[in-house]
Amino acid sequence: MTHPGSAGGVKLTDSQRLDWLRLIRSENVGPRTFRALVNHYGGARPALERLPELARRGGAQSPGRICSVEEAEREVEAASRIGAVFIALGEPDYPARLRMIDDAPPVISVRGRFDALKSAMVGIVGSRNASAAGAKFASQIARELGEADFVVVSGLARGIDAAAHRATLETGTVAVLAGGQDRIYPPEHVPLLGEILAQGAAISEMPFGWEPRARDFPRRNRLIAGLSLGVVVIEAARRSGSLITARLALEQGREVFAVPGSPLDPRCEGTNGLLKQGATLVTETNDVLAVLGPILGRIAALPASEPSHEADEPPTEPALNERRRIVDLLGPTPVEIDELIRQSGARPSVVRTVLLELEIAGRLERQPGGRVALL
Amino acid sequence: MTHPGSAGGVKLTDSQRLDWLRLIRSENVGPRTFRALVNHYGGARPALERLPELARRGGAQSPGRICSVEEAEREVEAASRIGAVFIALGEPDYPARLRMIDDAPPVISVRGRFDALKSAMVGIVGSRNASAAGAKFASQIARELGEADFVVVSGLARGIDAAAHRATLETGTVAVLAGGQDRIYPPEHVPLLGEILAQGAAISEMPFGWEPRARDFPRRNRLIAGLSLGVVVIEAARRSGSLITARLALEQGREVFAVPGSPLDPRCEGTNGLLKQGATLVTETNDVLAVLGPILGRIAALPASEPSHEADEPPTEPALNERRRIVDLLGPTPVEIDELIRQSGARPSVVRTVLLELEIAGRLERQPGGRVALL
Repeated sequence: MTHPGSAGGVKLTDSQRLDWLRLIRSENVGPRTFRALVNHYGGARPALERLPELARRGGAQSPGRICSVEEAEREVEAASRIGAVFIALGEPDYPARLRMIDDAPPVISVRGRFDALKSAMVGIVGSRNASAAGAKFASQIARELGEADFVVVSGLARGIDAAAHRATLETGTVAVLAGGQDRIYPPEHVPLLGEILAQGAAISEMPFGWEPRARDFPRRNRLIAGLSLGVVVIEAARRSGSLITARLALEQGREVFAVPGSPLDPRCEGTNGLLKQGATLVTETNDVLAVLGPILGRIAALPASEPSHEADEPPTEPALNERRRIVDLLGPTPVEIDELIRQSGARPSVVRTVLLELEIAGRLERQPGGRVALL
Repeated sequence: MTHPGSAGGVKLTDSQRLDWLRLIRSENVGPRTFRALVNHYGGARPALERLPELARRGGAQSPGRICSVEEAEREVEAASRIGAVFIALGEPDYPARLRMIDDAPPVISVRGRFDALKSAMVGIVGSRNASAAGAKFASQIARELGEADFVVVSGLARGIDAAAHRATLETGTVAVLAGGQDRIYPPEHVPLLGEILAQGAAISEMPFGWEPRARDFPRRNRLIAGLSLGVVVIEAARRSGSLITARLALEQGREVFAVPGSPLDPRCEGTNGLLKQGATLVTETNDVLAVLGPILGRIAALPASEPSHEADEPPTEPALNERRRIVDLLGPTPVEIDELIRQSGARPSVVRTVLLELEIAGRLERQPGGRVALL
């Protein structure tokens, strides 16, 4: 059984991959909960079987919706009709850098050329209402990064994103979608996406048919950063989505580059702010290559395996009073799971089980750094 | 006798000040040579008396021109007719920060309000062909620095300089001239200079009547930096005079600030380059105040005296073979004077005398860091 913590890349059977898809498509199961469930129960199938009981014990009003085999099969079929296939985390075609992030999607759908996902990638993001100069600079740097054998990742948005994709249609570019593979946003970029797929790829973690909502874009942005060695931000206003991408890139330990601009141009407030915070200043492609070149070298020198995760002890049923003690220790302020184990005095596997129950009941959120909070 | 190495501020007699003016106006005497001469011979008057002999022994083809008492008096009179007075280094009205630089002018002429020179100063420099946005930003930051009780120093040039002066006419601004006080460049800024003098000042180290040449501008730029706690560079092309000011500011240990701009705008190549080299990025006045505020605090806490210079031993006449040995050790590559003393085996005062001979003969140049080179 391959699970998210396993080393190397092993292809799943179709039936295993369907289980993975079912589990991540089930209610209250996000990437972090998925990882916890699979680690705790030893696979997606046993986790699926435990979901109803976990929800009930976690105090859910009604049992959470579990994705059925038929639903998952319908999604796989619908996706395959437009040429999209599913890849699970840990499979050989899953993008190597993305696999390393804390909340990597357990399953992604991919259209286009898988080999584009094997290349070293750089994200280029920026304003939707880019200036002519900004769009021109995005084209220039994207083209030159493409010529330096980088695949350029972006979000298919208007402005900077589109300029970066268009400049790298021939060298390869990856569009990360905020909705399903059949729900392209903005709609006028459907033809552009078609051109992207010739040498590049489109990636989504969202279900087929999912119409992207505002909150899906920040979620998507973590994938742009996660795929990339670094992210170049070109024109970004204050509080813009591009700054979210930059923040996520920093959290993921990726390089952040920003292009300077006039203090009088609101489109440059965000990028100038990033520079004040220590982002690398970029006025030419070499500024990016100078930082990423050495990193590329180090990555090539690393063995091709991931750090192994510690195996969980076998799941243990919590006693009623243990469950209450653990729940009482939780609140809206995020707390580290290790701290929770220490303070509750309960065995780690018991704490993890209670947390899973609460998660599946929709009452708990996992946050970066192994912290959890009651919702 | 007050000389450049003395502590505190003591007013010279008119006659002493005239000697200082004569010495710095004499051929082959620059600020560093002036300092060496006065330190070596104990004053400007004895130094003037030794000039002809020094030139002859240094191997000058013809004796260098020495500024006569009459010439110096004529300059003082002409200057006073337009309200300019001379201040010698070490006198109470001489700007405190400027006094500290290696090649501080021994005498400056000042028009306007001396009290402006007592304030903490910030230089603002940039392109002559500034963009509208650049000029607007210069006005804004200059006005706000003025409101924060800084006097703004600049070079009276077109573009950024003029915008910075105009925005600080009421709070006080200092124009540093590349030519004499009666040779304003560009000529159309004569009315602007008039407005500057109401609350501010104009400074020059050049003789009355001196028409500024291209090479006088970099020389002038060291005074802009030298007067200031830090220099803000707004729009600067590659190889521009503003970058020279920034480099000199760094050499003088002053802060360098730069305003970011589009990589596609050649007027921002220099400023973006400064940012890559570590200049503080400025998008608002607070970025400058945040750095200069603490420095101001430290300066206020310092005692009001300069570090004392070691007194020279009495001048000694070099023997012929000593002079030859020292000259042989010199070449076009700058060498430290201490090194020269070590290698020649001669007494320090002998080495200094030989160097002064060569300088006065126009055969030697003093460089920063106590180094000398044969011309």
